[in-house]
Amino acid sequence: MDSLIEKIKSEGRLLDGDILKVDSFLNHQIDVSFMKEIGAEFYRLFSDCGVNKILTVEASGIGIACITAQFFNCSAVFAKKSKSANIGDDVYTSVAHSYTYNRDNVITVSKSFLSPKDNLLIVDDFLARGAALTALVDIAEKSGATVSGVGIVIEKAYQGGGDTLRARGVRIESLARILRMNKEEGIVFSA
Amino acid sequence: MDSLIEKIKSEGRLLDGDILKVDSFLNHQIDVSFMKEIGAEFYRLFSDCGVNKILTVEASGIGIACITAQFFNCSAVFAKKSKSANIGDDVYTSVAHSYTYNRDNVITVSKSFLSPKDNLLIVDDFLARGAALTALVDIAEKSGATVSGVGIVIEKAYQGGGDTLRARGVRIESLARILRMNKEEGIVFSA
Repeated sequence: MDSLIEKIKSEGRLLDGDILKVDSFLNHQIDVSFMKEIGAEFYRLFSDCGVNKILTVEASGIGIACITAQFFNCSAVFAKKSKSANIGDDVYTSVAHSYTYNRDNVITVSKSFLSPKDNLLIVDDFLARGAALTALVDIAEKSGATVSGVGIVIEKAYQGGGDTLRARGVRIESLARILRMNKEEGIVFSA
Repeated sequence: MDSLIEKIKSEGRLLDGDILKVDSFLNHQIDVSFMKEIGAEFYRLFSDCGVNKILTVEASGIGIACITAQFFNCSAVFAKKSKSANIGDDVYTSVAHSYTYNRDNVITVSKSFLSPKDNLLIVDDFLARGAALTALVDIAEKSGATVSGVGIVIEKAYQGGGDTLRARGVRIESLARILRMNKEEGIVFSA
């Protein structure tokens, strides 16, 4: 998605520790009009799949999921990273290690909101090692829902999480795929 | 907002511990088409205020903020509850106690995304004791931004947080105000 690559080039910042900061438009401040372009692109890619629900994980995925859900005219569900006092026990869970926060997150979805009748598009902001996404797919599988596909805004392809999941048969479409990034070359995108 | 009150009456569940569960449409599964009605109502209430940015706190506020931002044709910013490895030190912070999770959250917004030029509408799903909202207002004030108002989906008026902030001069519009709720009477809304 050329406009996304341009946006990353103009606003993204490469920091030590293999960090790409895109918090001016994607995951802290959200450029909502640009997010609509992202939602429209996910719709273009997955509109023929019969998707009836968008699944993501808090927090950065929620805005993407809500904007994308408008195009599919469906609801969004976000997995929770903290077990709140009131979510109840009737839940699907899976463990995802967060490298950003350096801790294990048990992510949780109430059984009320996923079922074998659901046909899911999973969305998230980043795909790197794939921990969060693998946990979401795991939860979807536990519920019996179909996963028609995964829409990712930025994939760090060199970290391999996407390819591992693709090898399991999951259809993943990433709007920007980064082959490598470093101070010498900057950010190198897949063609 | 009559449609919201009907929605709460039909889908909300009153649990022990003064908990109103509305996770089928508001804060776990998100009924995005209904959320657009909420965003439109916030726009009706605040459209003449010159709002240029929507501010909220993760996680449940993010969907509301993004959908509402579409009506104002502006960006959304969400305060973070965890200090991530890459947010940096140039931040505004404030402490908010979460009664849902029974812990103190230091909420954080990067200084890059709030300034004296900003005219904010703060939105959130619930207002009860007002801890999260007070922290957001505090961060806004630290940044020098104007807070034109606060849009809340459901206010538990009997918990007093809204009135405390109104007494400080903050304009708060809640789309549903609960006067009391208990097993005998159910949920009693303000007229």
